[in-house]
Order: sequence, then structure tokens, then C-alpha cells
Amino acid sequence: MTNNITPQSEDYSRWYLDIIREAELAENSEARGSMVIRPYGYALWEAIQSGLDRRFKDTGHVNAYFPLFIPKSLFQKEAEHVKGFDPELAVVTIGGGSTLEEPLVVRPTSEAIIGHHYAKWIQSYRDLPLLINQWANVVRWEMRNRPFLRTTEFLWQEGHTAHATEDEAREETLRMLDVYVDFAENDAAIPVIKGIKSDRETFPGAVNTYTIEGMMGNKWALQMGTSHYLGTKFAQMNQIKFLDQNNVSQLCHTTSWGISTRMVGAVIMAHGDNQGLRLPPVLAPIQVVIVPIWRKEAERVSVLEVVDRVHTNLRDKGIRVKVDRRDDQTPGFKYNDWEMRGVPMRIEIGPRDVQQQSVVFARRDRPGKEGKSFGIPLSEVAHETQTLLHSIQENLRLQALQTRADNTHRVTSYTAFQEVLQEKEGFLHVHWAGTTQDEERIQEETKATLRCLPLDSTTEEGQCILTGKRTSQMAIFARAY
Amino acid sequence: MTNNITPQSEDYSRWYLDIIREAELAENSEARGSMVIRPYGYALWEAIQSGLDRRFKDTGHVNAYFPLFIPKSLFQKEAEHVKGFDPELAVVTIGGGSTLEEPLVVRPTSEAIIGHHYAKWIQSYRDLPLLINQWANVVRWEMRNRPFLRTTEFLWQEGHTAHATEDEAREETLRMLDVYVDFAENDAAIPVIKGIKSDRETFPGAVNTYTIEGMMGNKWALQMGTSHYLGTKFAQMNQIKFLDQNNVSQLCHTTSWGISTRMVGAVIMAHGDNQGLRLPPVLAPIQVVIVPIWRKEAERVSVLEVVDRVHTNLRDKGIRVKVDRRDDQTPGFKYNDWEMRGVPMRIEIGPRDVQQQSVVFARRDRPGKEGKSFGIPLSEVAHETQTLLHSIQENLRLQALQTRADNTHRVTSYTAFQEVLQEKEGFLHVHWAGTTQDEERIQEETKATLRCLPLDSTTEEGQCILTGKRTSQMAIFARAY
Repeated sequence: MTNNITPQSEDYSRWYLDIIREAELAENSEARGSMVIRPYGYALWEAIQSGLDRRFKDTGHVNAYFPLFIPKSLFQKEAEHVKGFDPELAVVTIGGGSTLEEPLVVRPTSEAIIGHHYAKWIQSYRDLPLLINQWANVVRWEMRNRPFLRTTEFLWQEGHTAHATEDEAREETLRMLDVYVDFAENDAAIPVIKGIKSDRETFPGAVNTYTIEGMMGNKWALQMGTSHYLGTKFAQMNQIKFLDQNNVSQLCHTTSWGISTRMVGAVIMAHGDNQGLRLPPVLAPIQVVIVPIWRKEAERVSVLEVVDRVHTNLRDKGIRVKVDRRDDQTPGFKYNDWEMRGVPMRIEIGPRDVQQQSVVFARRDRPGKEGKSFGIPLSEVAHETQTLLHSIQENLRLQALQTRADNTHRVTSYTAFQEVLQEKEGFLHVHWAGTTQDEERIQEETKATLRCLPLDSTTEEGQCILTGKRTSQMAIFARAY
Repeated sequence: MTNNITPQSEDYSRWYLDIIREAELAENSEARGSMVIRPYGYALWEAIQSGLDRRFKDTGHVNAYFPLFIPKSLFQKEAEHVKGFDPELAVVTIGGGSTLEEPLVVRPTSEAIIGHHYAKWIQSYRDLPLLINQWANVVRWEMRNRPFLRTTEFLWQEGHTAHATEDEAREETLRMLDVYVDFAENDAAIPVIKGIKSDRETFPGAVNTYTIEGMMGNKWALQMGTSHYLGTKFAQMNQIKFLDQNNVSQLCHTTSWGISTRMVGAVIMAHGDNQGLRLPPVLAPIQVVIVPIWRKEAERVSVLEVVDRVHTNLRDKGIRVKVDRRDDQTPGFKYNDWEMRGVPMRIEIGPRDVQQQSVVFARRDRPGKEGKSFGIPLSEVAHETQTLLHSIQENLRLQALQTRADNTHRVTSYTAFQEVLQEKEGFLHVHWAGTTQDEERIQEETKATLRCLPLDSTTEEGQCILTGKRTSQMAIFARAY
């Protein structure tokens, strides 16, 4: 065991918790199920927020903020929605020292309260589409907790839009799904399968739920973001109506879509290895760490002079760079420490490098000597750093893509399905024409769940692996978080 | 009454609520005391966040996130803190369908929970100073609500730092106060008085509370941000200790400091006039609105061609610019509408301007003809816009400074004090050597409160206006929100 981190092969779940502790990403708090997101973990979340927020604004959305507390009667208007969330609610019953006449639900999601206000803001077709996002905390009472993946309180963004027609609302639902794909693949370097959820996994109250599913290092699936077409159900519940061009009153079609701090868990598990985190440069709070190396005082001065020059040079190019100036730790310790924290690349500068007016690069995504480049001339450092960061970003994505390809299995019988899950896990790509009950049976027998019906799927007919029915519908099954 | 906004002189409080409704900044929500921050109001908050966050990072702070829920027993450790906040708490007693064994307090502020975690993170002097900020929502049960100024739930940032010595902690407390002054004056264009609070107004559990106080349009004071030196009180309560260089265990000295969505209220009230909002360019969500003017279809095409060119030109320079393309509203309506919404400057482009290859500027801070500039050549628009935005920013600050100077009164007797408050209100600058009871008496008799003991005050001796005692201590009294 290096760095107090359990090897993945020994116990993946412990590996995950070890990394979170050692890299100081998060820790449990006193209120059961809540976590503290520590500065390094929060910086990762800030990078995720920034990548998403830019994309939301580029697609015409604005941010707003709706209340944390929702009166219980308002929350209970949409029947399926309530059924889905009621068991998970935290409820405020005391305010300012008195028992409240009406208890307040701490929002588990905001369709109910946002719809209530949209009904006031939307009068005419001219007010549509209404495209709003909110960054907020939400609370869902969870019995089994795991930092970032499942916590009682979590941070997320929730987009809520209202449209004049079903077509426009469905287009928005898929547009935001594509925004999520773009973010996952290009910023988080995680290839994802986009698909539609089965009825069993559809958001309570939605007509359709779309999802992006990524493969984690233990070959399990993680749902990384969802986008819902809500039809006119929430519009009906809140009377979100508009006068169309012909002065006829119509119900709006609405959507909602969200990505949460769960994305931090995805980045940890899609890229991490036995040494620790491996962060994609686009999201890494520190993209480059510079480690100065010296023995004698005279060396120290000349080394630090070059270190400072490189530091300033990179910072001025907008690269997030840190110099590890600790004088009570060896360079070797520092290498391990920053590797464990997933910093994409390291620059080593010692007396010989100063003499040769060059530096050494080491990349996190390729271990040992293979990942080192010697003699990078000082004059080229900024340019070469940018090039290498791009290359690491792309390489992490390709490695994840390869892992997924290696562990996605096309099976045509339920026997083969069960064998694969027992022997090696992974994604199972199958023809599917089953029901909710069939999904439940599969979960009981194999622990795998239907992740999605992929959108980009072949349409060749085949036999449903469970029911034997002919179908052109494909499905992805996997064990999942 | 223009634009459905009550004149300030008629009813300042109604003027404030009218602006918030008409400019679509916020609205009340169903949970009593909660508000929805609408997109235009939230964009203003995003600009405030961005200006503060940059300054926090420049002074070495990092962000993190601590839980919304605090177990009641943890919250109750610091006696004065509890006494101050207990009457204002919202309490969760039900989670996941069951009554909780221990109720959870919805954070009214986070000293208690953050201190609890700092105690685990800090071991040695090498871990200090610890400089963390969090952006979060907090809840304080308020009986009288006013949007942005006093709401049950509000958004804020709360910085929490731990230091090895009192000197360092006091230095941090004042450094962050100066960061607030810098933000208020340069971004919000609101001159502020920095001072220390009297015992009566000190944060529950703090040793000293520092404040920045601004003057609003009705001559009342608004506390716009506070910075607290907490001594070792919270360190004691949570056992936040470190081993110093001599291996001796010591208690940390801690600070906390915060600015909230109240700052949006400050911007509205410090600059707004009877036409509506007047936003400082640094914070304005829309800095420039372009209004195209035409009558015939042929004009429309040539006007819009120039409008698009100017729009692109300004946007590429990083200016937040919007074109009002509505075809169902007259230019006159649009002028009023954007003036009401406080957009700092307007560019008008009509057929004659196209012919002359020039545009017209109108600045929001100077009404009517006086604020217009004709014949700005197209080639100079970007440069001239930047210059004018700077000038508006500075002018708003100077106007607010003038208002404050005109309404700050140096008085030397309690009779004069009472007369000024009855006749014209404003800030009263007095010698002060009174007690908490004296402050209470003044508030009962005049409704004015002691805003602060200014830091940048003369030290000439004089007579306390109430007690007659000789003192060199000055104080600012005013009616306040």
C-alpha cells in the first residue's frame, strides 16, 4: 500500500474512501449523512461549475435562486412526485421558537416551488421559452451514504424551462443532455452513454428521463446527469399557462435537468489509480506543480531563481501552477504527494537543469520513466506545458474509452449475461423488451440494473435476453452506484 | 408616478418595493419570509460574488462547503452565540419519515460546525493560518421581512480563519474589513464608514465586531458587511489547538466575516432615483443597451446592420451589452424601461446616425438632454463606451459621497441631536462615552442606533453628547435598516 491508499483490486470501496481522505477532498460531518467538502474537493467542484455555467449561458439560460423551504401543501400537489420524494424528506417543524402551523419541506428538488412562480411570470407566448438554472443545495434523506455519490445534503444545479410546445420542450431536454455529454467528455474526460431511462428509473412526475452513464474504475456504472421532459404534468399542477398567438390559453411544456457534486465522485472513480487521483487538466485545481531540488545553499538560490521565473511565466499564461516550497519534505515525498492528489503534471528543477537552462517534465497519466521528458528548454516551457496538458486531457479520455470498450459485453442470452456479471462485471449490451417486473427480477438475481436504452444504438432486430421477444430496442445493464 | 414607481419623497419604503417588483429583482415566496431572487437580481448578486471572490482569492483564501444542518448539541456549545441565535432558529425534527433523535438546526451562521472541523484539521503551527470562505444559504427566523434586507433565508459568504496569535487574527479581521471597503467603494460605488461596533451590537460570541456602514437614499444607514475578531472563544468551545514551534499546545485565535444578498439592497437604495434603479457599471448585469430606431423597412435593414456591428464590437471588448430588438414597443418605451432597470448607458442608433456613421450616447446618471452625447463616430464607439462607463462608475460614487457629506451632521448636544433627527435625519457624528443602557435610551427616544465608532476618526477631546463625560471617542448614530 502506497500513501495509505488501499489498492483498487483489494477493495475498491475502501480505495475510494482512502483517496477522499488522503487527498483531503471531503469528510463526514456530525449531522448524519452530511459531508464537508474540503478546499481541494471544492476547487474541483468550482471547476465543474464553471464549465457547466458557461455552457448554460451559451445556450441562453440565466441563473436565479428559489427558496430552500417549500410549504408542505405546495410540495404535495403532484402525486407521483410526492410518492417518489416523500420518504426522503427533511421537514422543518419549528421556526423562531414556535411550532409552525404548516411544516416546511427542505427542497429535495425544486419543480414544485419553481413551477409555482413560473405560473405568475408567464402570461403570453412572448414570455416563452423561459430558461432558468439555479445552483443550490438540496436534501434527500438517505440511509446509505457515500461521500459525493450519495449524501443527505448535496450541491447541484437544476435547470427548469418552460416552452410553448412539446417539440420545443423535447428539443431542450435533448439539448441539455448534449451539453452534459460535451462537459463530461471534454472537461471531465469521461466518455458517456446517453440514453433514456426505463419507466422504473424515470424521475417521479416526468414523462421521460434521459441520462448520461459513465463507467467507473471497478466497471460499475454511474449516472452522471439527467434531463427530464416533464410534459404538462407540472404545468397542470401549478397552472403554468400562456395565451398563444391566437389568444387561446395553453398549458406549458416543461423540462428539468441536473448535475450534482456526484460528478466529483465520477472524476475520482473514472480516472483514479492505485497511486491516487488523476485529474483531467481542464478541471484540476492545480494543473502543474513545480518541485525545486537542491542540496547546498548556493544551489537553492539559483534553483529558486529559475523556479520563480517558470512559475511567473506559466501563471501569466493562465495555467494553474503551484510551487511546492516546503523545506521539511524531500523531493521524493513531494512527487508521491502530488501524484496522489492527481496533479496532471510536475516540473522538476534542480542544479543540473539550471546549468543546462532546461527543466524536467513528469506526467501523471504515464507512470515512471515513461512519463518523463528531460531537457525541456526554459524558453519552451510555457508552450510545451500547454501542449502536454492538452495531451494528458486527451489521453485520460482515451484511456477511459478503452476501459469501457474492454468491459462492454454484447450478450444474447440471460445465461451469458449472468456469467459475465459473475466473472468480470462491466456493461452488458443486450436486446431488451422486458417490463418493470423483469428489471426487478434481473436486479434480484444479478444486482445489475437497467442503466438506459441508448439513443445511439443499432436498430437490428434480435431477441430480448430475458423474454425472448423480438425487438430492435437495445439496453445497457450494469451494477451501479 | 412614472413606471408604476412611487416617488421616493412620497414613501421611500414603497419606492423600494416598487423597484424590486418592476425591475423584476425578486418576489416573495410561499414560505413566509423567503424570497425568490429573479434572474436580473441574481445576475447582480453574481457580479457581487465575482468581485468579492476574486478579492478573497487574491488575499490567500480558498473556498469550501460545510453542511446546512448542525446537530443541536454542537450548536449549543458557545453560550453567548446560542443566546444570540436561539430565537431565530429553524429546526428540522423529521427526517426520512421519522422523528429525529436529535433535532438539526438549519445554520444561521457556521462558526459552530466549521470550528468543529478546524479542530481536526489543525495540529501544528505549520497548518496555520487556515483561510477558508464559504458561499452558502443561511436561515434566520425573522418576524419583519423586507426583500434583500431581511429575509428568513439569505445568501452570503462567510469567511472563517484560524491563526496562531491574536495579532495575526486581528490583522486578518481588519484586512477583510478593508477588502469590504474596497469592494463597496470601487465595485458598488458606495462610500462607507468603517468602524467598530459597540458592545450592544457586537456579534454574539465575538470579542470585537467591525462594520462598514453606508448611507441609503433616505439618509438611513445600512450595515453592509461585518468582520469579527472571535478571540479564543470558539477555539475553546471546539478545542481548536495547535502545537507551536516549542511544541507547546495553544488555542487558535479565529475570525469570521460576511457579506450577504443585503448588498443588493444597498445598491438599490444608495443609487436609485424616482425613475428606478441606477446600477454601477462594474456590477450591472447589462452595462449598455442598444436601441435601434426606424420607421420604414428600408431603414430597419440599414439600422440593424450598424446595430449588429456595434453590438459585436462592444461584446468582443468584454462589455455586457444587449440589443433591445422588441418590435412591439416604441423607442420611448424602451428608454424608460431600461432607465427603470438601471442600465448605466444607452446607445441609440437611427437612420440619421447610420447616414453620419455615428451613434448617440445617453447616460443613466444624468437625466435628460444633459446626459446625451450626439455624433459619436462609429470607429470610436468601443473606446468611448469604456470611457463613459468608467466615468459613470466614478460619478455614482461621487454623488453618493456628496449625499453623505450633505447629510452628516456634527452635533455637540443631545438637543441638537434630537432636532436633526426630527427635522432631516442623516448621520450624526458625535463624541460618545455612553453605555449600552444609554444607547437603548437614545433608540427609544429617537429611533437612532449607534452604527459604529469610526476607525478613521479625530482624537480631539470633547463632551459625550448624552453623559457629558470628556472623551476622544467619536460615534456615528443614525436610523438604520
